[in-house]
Amino acid sequence: MALIVQKYGGSSLESADRIKRVAERIVATKKAGNEVVVVCSAMGDTTDELLDLAEQVNPVPPEREMDMLLTAGERISNALVAMAISAQGAEAWSFTGSQAGVVTTSVHGNARIIDVTPGRVTEALDQGYIALVAGFQGVAQDTKDITTLGRGGSDTTAVALAAALEADACEIYSDVDGVYTSDPRIVPDARRLDTVPYEEMLELAASGSKILHLRSVEYARRYGVPIRVRSSYSDKPGTTVAGSIEEIPVEQALITGVAHDRSEAKITVTGVPDHAGAAGSIFRAVADAEIDIDMVLQNVSNTQGRTDVTFTLSKANGPSAVSELEALKEQIGFSAVLYDDHVGKVSLVGAGMRSHPGVTATFCEALANAGVNIEIINTSEIRISVLIRDEQVDDAVRAIHEAFELGGDDEAVVYAGSGR
Amino acid sequence: MALIVQKYGGSSLESADRIKRVAERIVATKKAGNEVVVVCSAMGDTTDELLDLAEQVNPVPPEREMDMLLTAGERISNALVAMAISAQGAEAWSFTGSQAGVVTTSVHGNARIIDVTPGRVTEALDQGYIALVAGFQGVAQDTKDITTLGRGGSDTTAVALAAALEADACEIYSDVDGVYTSDPRIVPDARRLDTVPYEEMLELAASGSKILHLRSVEYARRYGVPIRVRSSYSDKPGTTVAGSIEEIPVEQALITGVAHDRSEAKITVTGVPDHAGAAGSIFRAVADAEIDIDMVLQNVSNTQGRTDVTFTLSKANGPSAVSELEALKEQIGFSAVLYDDHVGKVSLVGAGMRSHPGVTATFCEALANAGVNIEIINTSEIRISVLIRDEQVDDAVRAIHEAFELGGDDEAVVYAGSGR
Repeated sequence: MALIVQKYGGSSLESADRIKRVAERIVATKKAGNEVVVVCSAMGDTTDELLDLAEQVNPVPPEREMDMLLTAGERISNALVAMAISAQGAEAWSFTGSQAGVVTTSVHGNARIIDVTPGRVTEALDQGYIALVAGFQGVAQDTKDITTLGRGGSDTTAVALAAALEADACEIYSDVDGVYTSDPRIVPDARRLDTVPYEEMLELAASGSKILHLRSVEYARRYGVPIRVRSSYSDKPGTTVAGSIEEIPVEQALITGVAHDRSEAKITVTGVPDHAGAAGSIFRAVADAEIDIDMVLQNVSNTQGRTDVTFTLSKANGPSAVSELEALKEQIGFSAVLYDDHVGKVSLVGAGMRSHPGVTATFCEALANAGVNIEIINTSEIRISVLIRDEQVDDAVRAIHEAFELGGDDEAVVYAGSGR
Repeated sequence: MALIVQKYGGSSLESADRIKRVAERIVATKKAGNEVVVVCSAMGDTTDELLDLAEQVNPVPPEREMDMLLTAGERISNALVAMAISAQGAEAWSFTGSQAGVVTTSVHGNARIIDVTPGRVTEALDQGYIALVAGFQGVAQDTKDITTLGRGGSDTTAVALAAALEADACEIYSDVDGVYTSDPRIVPDARRLDTVPYEEMLELAASGSKILHLRSVEYARRYGVPIRVRSSYSDKPGTTVAGSIEEIPVEQALITGVAHDRSEAKITVTGVPDHAGAAGSIFRAVADAEIDIDMVLQNVSNTQGRTDVTFTLSKANGPSAVSELEALKEQIGFSAVLYDDHVGKVSLVGAGMRSHPGVTATFCEALANAGVNIEIINTSEIRISVLIRDEQVDDAVRAIHEAFELGGDDEAVVYAGSGR
């Protein structure tokens, strides 16, 4: 008898009808002889509707109350799924994150899981019940306030539960049937991957892939939880995310996939005096505003002893980063702050590049042949990323996918709402 | 500095706009120098929408999950009111019933409050915050499951909190501006009452008045909490429910009001053998089905040694009571079970009838003059109730209200959705 954790996202739960279909799958899994724990996100549009109501009563709602409000969404969906399960001949109990023992930091809106003590979940399983656990939420260890976990929080809840319960499998269901070599909407011959090691999945998630969220993959890797990415619309086996690149024999290491990201913008601070501390002041100012930066490029200084400092960041943070820097113009003595939000990032990921010289060369040649200009390049042991013009992202993705022969013969199966 | 508990019902919270108006009143109460605790029901249609969703996935939803589902409604409204308060310059924290220390029995859908330990509420008040507490819910003492409190649960939450916090006032807000001598929609010259003692309010609530729920008035009486019934649409002082009829000097005791109730049906079991145990079996069968009965009438047996047994019950329980009894026809040996759901109950309430002979006579004469036939009559020390044809209820109410000169000169002010 295996213990299986399943997670269903909002689009899989967007109506009473979808809820009943999900319940059928859960009951089938139970009847096959397994213990089943299910994590549900809020139904389809619920979170957006709640955010809208909040904004109507307060344009800048207090974070503690936002967490109290949004967590109602998961409460509703998990209770409804439990009811649907009951109508289909099995028994189920739903629990909030707090009741399920998900203990977190007290950072509202972006709490991290500190510990999971799922006593009531285990008790439910022992009594033959299916346990539903509200995703995306927990209780703060110090204040005992309810918290939400930030982006991908329901995936993280599922993986954390799987780790704490020593589950045999953690299945993440959405409307895509696995992790692909690239986005099938851009690359028609993108191929579904059977397996992806943790480190590669981390790089793909950090590079724009929306299939799994970074934090949940980090958690899975730390606790050794294998994740299966599957579609709630079919019985296909999906993709398994597990194992380390260290376990792959050198000769089998591959190039795995191409990710893209249109969510970043580029800031260039021009005419920065080339003395120790100038660049540091720029990065410190941005960091103090709690803004994360991604790619960095600093040119060699010109004959006047000045240089340009360029970096990328999330578009959402663009305007505030610009104003933070503008305020320091006199103090640091640079010429101007330029903002460019027509950039895109394209990344190639694969353990194989560690042992195959020439990958970088092939990568750059493919882009050059496609007429794509590289503005910034940034690499890790298993990833090459470039910043390019956003209107060239699709061409770049296809060119790289082709150059590394990642395509398959089968037409990629794309479901409605594919991508998450 | 006073500690005031305020409760707002669903219709007072039915939109973002109404929520902002309610927040204004709460902030004004705080700025006047008071400590403020607020209990909110779910927004207008939320509970019905959730019930509808539940029914779509399971026609007979498990009670534990129904409580998990419905309590999301109060979570949403209280968080939104807290946000609205914050936008208006005060600070507020919202709490679930469980977080606020509302401990209950484990009867899902109809739990009773066992204890209230509002530590986190007191802590919030001490720090200068307004505390919002979700009404209608608590946590079961033994199972630690979330429970809902049944009809009028939010009123009960407010009264229970007021008792536990030793509040100076408990204000119940709805869209009516007080307790009236009768329903203003039936009796245009119905008068708002300044004060109503607990026992009379209990009788009014039990006799069909929907202003306050029976359980909340019982709780208020037990703990000596004065309740003020006010409108969230005006600043009128409303009606105070407090004190005992024992405190009223005999000469001041009055006839207070006329209530009516259309929610009951009548069952007559005909040709019941007139021996000990027959009637008992009938009532036992109904009781075993967990059905409450109200008025009872048993005729004197006729020459064949048979009698009719008549009682009233909630219409909702009618069909199941009938089938329970039909099943016993042979065993008990009665002739038939007759079901009549065109009945109505009209009640006169007032401490004054204890010391004023002739009240019953005046009551019956008024009905006779109005052409209303009495089918069953039932009295307590301070109440006379009659069962009549439902189409005669309005006439009966007006006739009795007139006969006891309960009307006032001012036109009763009726707001949209008046009655609850």
